[in-house]
Amino acid sequence: MANDKHIASAFDRDLEGVQALIMKMGGLVEAAITDAATALETRDLELAEEVRRRDAQIDALDEQINEDCARVIAMRQPIASDLRTVLSVMRISTNLERCGDYAKNLAKRTSVLSELTPIEGSGTSLRRMAREVEEMLKQALDAYIQRDADLANTVRHRDLDVDQMYNTLFREFLTYMMEDPRNITPCMHLHFIAKNIERMGDHVTSVAEQVVYLVTGKLPDENRPKGDLTSGQTVETWD
Amino acid sequence: MANDKHIASAFDRDLEGVQALIMKMGGLVEAAITDAATALETRDLELAEEVRRRDAQIDALDEQINEDCARVIAMRQPIASDLRTVLSVMRISTNLERCGDYAKNLAKRTSVLSELTPIEGSGTSLRRMAREVEEMLKQALDAYIQRDADLANTVRHRDLDVDQMYNTLFREFLTYMMEDPRNITPCMHLHFIAKNIERMGDHVTSVAEQVVYLVTGKLPDENRPKGDLTSGQTVETWD
Repeated sequence: MANDKHIASAFDRDLEGVQALIMKMGGLVEAAITDAATALETRDLELAEEVRRRDAQIDALDEQINEDCARVIAMRQPIASDLRTVLSVMRISTNLERCGDYAKNLAKRTSVLSELTPIEGSGTSLRRMAREVEEMLKQALDAYIQRDADLANTVRHRDLDVDQMYNTLFREFLTYMMEDPRNITPCMHLHFIAKNIERMGDHVTSVAEQVVYLVTGKLPDENRPKGDLTSGQTVETWD
Repeated sequence: MANDKHIASAFDRDLEGVQALIMKMGGLVEAAITDAATALETRDLELAEEVRRRDAQIDALDEQINEDCARVIAMRQPIASDLRTVLSVMRISTNLERCGDYAKNLAKRTSVLSELTPIEGSGTSLRRMAREVEEMLKQALDAYIQRDADLANTVRHRDLDVDQMYNTLFREFLTYMMEDPRNITPCMHLHFIAKNIERMGDHVTSVAEQVVYLVTGKLPDENRPKGDLTSGQTVETWD
């Protein structure tokens, strides 16, 4: 019994170490999202370059978390809910890493966009959308630390707002493109960026889903309403 | 020693079971990619609907593989390269599931596109691109079964061709859009599809990278040349 307790504590200690890395990574991803969106809005190429550079730290943390988790599994041989926790941590890390990649992609396009005709209001709209995703991420990480399935479900539903913002922007860009062919190239880039932010929202939602899995032992139902309607929309509804 | 051998065999048997599921899943994803591209080219709405329906099987296999892997870890408590194998299998499954999602997205857009002005040659180009990804996937799965890092590296480099096909299509769609505003809406959809196929290629590349990791114990260097140049291109190079 004493031995059992000793093993459990060692596992908990290891896990705390990994969780600290997840929180550090989460903080870096939050900053990447905010800074990438600000750089885009203010056409700040230096800040965009910094976001690109900092992505290496996020990637390195992801790698370290994966290695640490593999080591914890090998050394502590956790079962049942402990094993579930370690596997969830690995998936959360993957999702955070992907968010970081999208932020980097966003930063990459800033320099191209800064040379093109500005599209009125687009920077602000995109930053608002990015801000929403960043807040969702903060909530998802809180839900993870507090093992709060309700808060995680809030995040999942908040993703619908992001999808709706994306749909609105998509229609707006189409209208701009039809109005003036010179808007086509900038709008194609802006549309890419909007889609990237929408995808970040999906990854944050996956983090929230892992939290639900962690707490309840089940992934939430797959019938979460999807908000990106553009794949099923006919042209009539677009303008 | 005899006991060790017994444990090893039980692990191997379990792993074979999971690998059979991976191969089954891989086959379904290959079919999904081919059929989605064919449905798009021939405007076959029934086939597109079938691709969408069949995605549930792919998702179910992913879930089963994850559960089985967790069970194998808990029961067999593998360490070192055995543990690495199980964790890689989980990542491969995730990547295959994402490919399936992209094929489903592609199928979803078929019905919208069938109502819009056709863009000459686009269906054939997209099917060629999808065909390339499907062949890469076949090779990646072969590399996995044969634990062949060289073959896996071939797949990684082949992804550059897919990226190049994407770049060409991106420029083509821009030209069509600038020529005639009526092409904007169909080209936006076609561009989405091209980007989805390019992303499938990235996920297949991740599968290949997992094979390299499995065989060599290291992920390949991150300095694999990236072929999607559109984020860094200025407008001058586009037409």
